[in-house]
Amino acid sequence: MNTDDIEEVQKVLDLYLKQDLENELSAYDIAQHLKALKYHDEDTYTSYLARLKTDVLGDVAIELPESLLKDVIENISTDKMVEALEELESDDQTDLLQYIKDIDEDKAKEIFDGLDKEDQADVLRLGSYSDDESGAYMQTELFWAYADEKLGDAVTRLREQKNAGELENISQLFIVNNDKILKYTIPLEELILFDFSKKLQQIIQEHEPDYYSPYAALDTQDIKDTVALVQEYDLNVIAVVDSKGILLGRITADDIHDFIQESATEQIYNLAGLNDEAEEEDTLAKAGKARAIWLFINLFTAILSSSIIGIFDETIASYVALAVLMPIVASMGGNTGTQALTVTVRRLTLGEIEFKDAKYVLKREVGISIINGIIFGAVMGIVSWLWFDKALLGLVIACSMIVNLSLAGFFGTVIPLTLKRLNIDPAVGSAVLLTTFTDSIGFFSFLGLAKWILI
Amino acid sequence: MNTDDIEEVQKVLDLYLKQDLENELSAYDIAQHLKALKYHDEDTYTSYLARLKTDVLGDVAIELPESLLKDVIENISTDKMVEALEELESDDQTDLLQYIKDIDEDKAKEIFDGLDKEDQADVLRLGSYSDDESGAYMQTELFWAYADEKLGDAVTRLREQKNAGELENISQLFIVNNDKILKYTIPLEELILFDFSKKLQQIIQEHEPDYYSPYAALDTQDIKDTVALVQEYDLNVIAVVDSKGILLGRITADDIHDFIQESATEQIYNLAGLNDEAEEEDTLAKAGKARAIWLFINLFTAILSSSIIGIFDETIASYVALAVLMPIVASMGGNTGTQALTVTVRRLTLGEIEFKDAKYVLKREVGISIINGIIFGAVMGIVSWLWFDKALLGLVIACSMIVNLSLAGFFGTVIPLTLKRLNIDPAVGSAVLLTTFTDSIGFFSFLGLAKWILI
Repeated sequence: MNTDDIEEVQKVLDLYLKQDLENELSAYDIAQHLKALKYHDEDTYTSYLARLKTDVLGDVAIELPESLLKDVIENISTDKMVEALEELESDDQTDLLQYIKDIDEDKAKEIFDGLDKEDQADVLRLGSYSDDESGAYMQTELFWAYADEKLGDAVTRLREQKNAGELENISQLFIVNNDKILKYTIPLEELILFDFSKKLQQIIQEHEPDYYSPYAALDTQDIKDTVALVQEYDLNVIAVVDSKGILLGRITADDIHDFIQESATEQIYNLAGLNDEAEEEDTLAKAGKARAIWLFINLFTAILSSSIIGIFDETIASYVALAVLMPIVASMGGNTGTQALTVTVRRLTLGEIEFKDAKYVLKREVGISIINGIIFGAVMGIVSWLWFDKALLGLVIACSMIVNLSLAGFFGTVIPLTLKRLNIDPAVGSAVLLTTFTDSIGFFSFLGLAKWILI
Repeated sequence: MNTDDIEEVQKVLDLYLKQDLENELSAYDIAQHLKALKYHDEDTYTSYLARLKTDVLGDVAIELPESLLKDVIENISTDKMVEALEELESDDQTDLLQYIKDIDEDKAKEIFDGLDKEDQADVLRLGSYSDDESGAYMQTELFWAYADEKLGDAVTRLREQKNAGELENISQLFIVNNDKILKYTIPLEELILFDFSKKLQQIIQEHEPDYYSPYAALDTQDIKDTVALVQEYDLNVIAVVDSKGILLGRITADDIHDFIQESATEQIYNLAGLNDEAEEEDTLAKAGKARAIWLFINLFTAILSSSIIGIFDETIASYVALAVLMPIVASMGGNTGTQALTVTVRRLTLGEIEFKDAKYVLKREVGISIINGIIFGAVMGIVSWLWFDKALLGLVIACSMIVNLSLAGFFGTVIPLTLKRLNIDPAVGSAVLLTTFTDSIGFFSFLGLAKWILI
């Protein structure tokens, strides 16, 4: 970023801090601006950091990468951080405290101790869920009422809680029985049409009680299943309950957006041998190290498959055209396998296929691979014949490509299905595993056939 | 799927059709069940298709792949199809009619003629937008009012429209001036707290008018920018306006979910040389053909880079270890480049980087690649030295890996940045282009250095 851009960034932030901006800046925007400043001029950056108000500080802090969050922790007092956290909803509160804890455990403890009892309880509860449980994504702030309350009383409470800044982004009233077990949910668009002086129980009985059955996720349920439910039924929000059915919280559409986006990034990165969390860091070291681990594994498997070539050193020495053609067989196998692998991984993720559909998926993928194997085997057979003026060489490469591409389709499907069956993320490591197979099979079938037929 | 599963599917569908199911089936579920039936027993499948009621038929039809939608068109009367379409919201109506048109233009025309004037106008309007414009994703059904209306009158209209089944999934009231220009928006959670007898204009003036400024997308704006706006500000819904600011429609959270999910799938598929639309089809032919096109391009580029090996045929003939090690250099370059490429493509998509950040991104990516090039060059140098008992061979592979991995990082970054700059989707074709570079550079640097140093 050049100096003009930096001046523009400072101007925008100045206007924002004076509340003179026509359009509100999002927390994400502010975080981006701060990032740009930091790399340009550390002092200016720190001064802007200090000027951020507590009503936005927490939201901005969540958007910052680890190295910048560290600056926040070092430069801003614990009291101000506590105030900033109190402004956040329970799920964001828990996340931010966790990020802080990863950097400075003592500071996190101090901030936690500064929170009020209710927030502390929420943080402990939400923090107790693992990353893949739905409970980890819920917020405890929601609009709920007992079934034997009057609608008007519930609305009065909504008014109080909204005025106190405790509730936002409400689209449903969740209704519980006296044991706090979730029974019904009414969207606000219908609630607004009802008689406020009636009891909720009565309103629901007068309409179709079934219609008001809530969509709910168990707190320990895999978040992926919860997101699938939200998508399938086009929900704006979903309730979260414990195993007894007691209402604990809700997950809203914006959290679902973020989850879908982040999961997609994770999958794309994993397929390419990248770690999504390491890549978010601005320092080269973490990302470089995570990438090196996968490159090491790839080096090891590449040596493994290349050692197959060593078996045929005499064959190659006596016929060098084999060395020229050999990478083509491997490359085409790798690409065909990657196509099958990618489709299978993605369809598993989207829930379009499961392990029990293995037979059908295999039939489809291997079918396509065999057809393409025959087509490209034939094409490459003719090309090689003409290139090196030897018909038998064409036959050898044609046969080995049919074998390699067909098996590539097979392994490209079987590897992710098997990983999924073993409860391993099918996107992690499957590409390296696949190319080990396609390289080895490619080299072995091509050089083996050449030794047998040509020499 | 085996016979037991099919019986289970039939049982579920029977219960559903009798409305005896405890939990509602989603349109997606029904579509999946029909798909399973079709492959098992065509007649049973057709009979269930015929029994679907018009209130769900349209939603199910949207979820079906082309081959099954064809059955719907052939087996269900135009009148019933018209009824089914009238049940859909305008965006789904437009989509389904487009799908039908792709299969049978005459049938689509007949159905269109059967729709009422208002629906016809919506379909024409929404159908006029291209796939990447926000207008193509909006629905025209929304809850709106003039600023000089009383809140109570607006709510009465909401009641009527809801009773007529014309509106669902409402979270905002959009307020326009007398020229229908969008001025304000009030979330229902606040609306419910206001005095119904007051005029909207008055209510807004009594509170903070700025607070009720709406988030809106221009109808011709790129849908990606609109989705980014929704994500940045955690919106449930966004208004769509024309260039004059006139309110045209809204895009809801569930459409945003679908868009994020489908874009991610498209990107993952494109990176692997797959076409997402062709893959959705159940027939092998379309998917196979789309994949073959990319394999053809890959074959062509693989021949190109392999022909470099041909230049060094004498070098290889006199030293066969080169043929063994050569694929390792290419493979490590390909993987390093793919890491840089994937990160760059994804960060471009997420809006984290733009072309103007090229210098910063290049510094980071090439930096990581050089470090990993040095590490793996050293490792592979020592391995080769020990493997073939020749120190100079180790030196050759070390140097060529440093060159290849560094350049792989460079091209992995430059290719997507350049494609993006040229307004070409950086995920399409970039992987093939990259491996052409990494293979060619790998072969040339390794064999060239070997010829120069070893022979």
